[in-house]
Amino acid sequence: MAKDLEISLLLDFYGDLLTQKQREVIELYYNEDLSLAEIAEHSHITRQGVRDSIKRAENQLAEYEDALRLKVRFDDIRGHVSKIERYLNEIVKENDKSINSAKVKQLADKIKNEISGIGI
Amino acid sequence: MAKDLEISLLLDFYGDLLTQKQREVIELYYNEDLSLAEIAEHSHITRQGVRDSIKRAENQLAEYEDALRLKVRFDDIRGHVSKIERYLNEIVKENDKSINSAKVKQLADKIKNEISGIGI
Repeated sequence: MAKDLEISLLLDFYGDLLTQKQREVIELYYNEDLSLAEIAEHSHITRQGVRDSIKRAENQLAEYEDALRLKVRFDDIRGHVSKIERYLNEIVKENDKSINSAKVKQLADKIKNEISGIGI
Repeated sequence: MAKDLEISLLLDFYGDLLTQKQREVIELYYNEDLSLAEIAEHSHITRQGVRDSIKRAENQLAEYEDALRLKVRFDDIRGHVSKIERYLNEIVKENDKSINSAKVKQLADKIKNEISGIGI
């Protein structure tokens, strides 16, 4: 069973929708990087039980993403925001080498502040 | 039972997580603006059954928002994006009245394009 990086991301979004037990097991596996055997020992269930529980949680996370597409939507927003940042930097550069307006510089800083505020 | 605008918004986010039956009833109530009696007739259940079903769906939606805070997060992003747009318009104005750089204008248009792309 290969560990899937994608699952860690989905876990960030939808972890709170899993049952406490499911969440504990899948977090030990993906975030703490424990093996199935280690989780089995820690949780007092069989290795196969751990495997089944992780599979169910993975399927659940995939269903949430199918319904809500949060990862896709945030990836999309992140893409737009990073282009905004790039074009803004070009505006600053253009301003620096021509009129060198303090006002434009200040406004650009305010925009950068808002971009940080989006925080995704 | 007062119709709650907030519920319509949560329904946009989390509607796909409700059962088909729950979703149908709550959409008729909130999006099609049917009365409890009309929905009862349409769905062949009692008026009280409709009311209970809507209440359960509302609670479910509130629980999803508690766990995922999508509405809060998107509201927050929307706030930042609208400030970015405002500051950008000030940059354009500043540019117009000083150096009038075609390059800055073009970059500002590209940023506006990305803002539209975010689409929230």
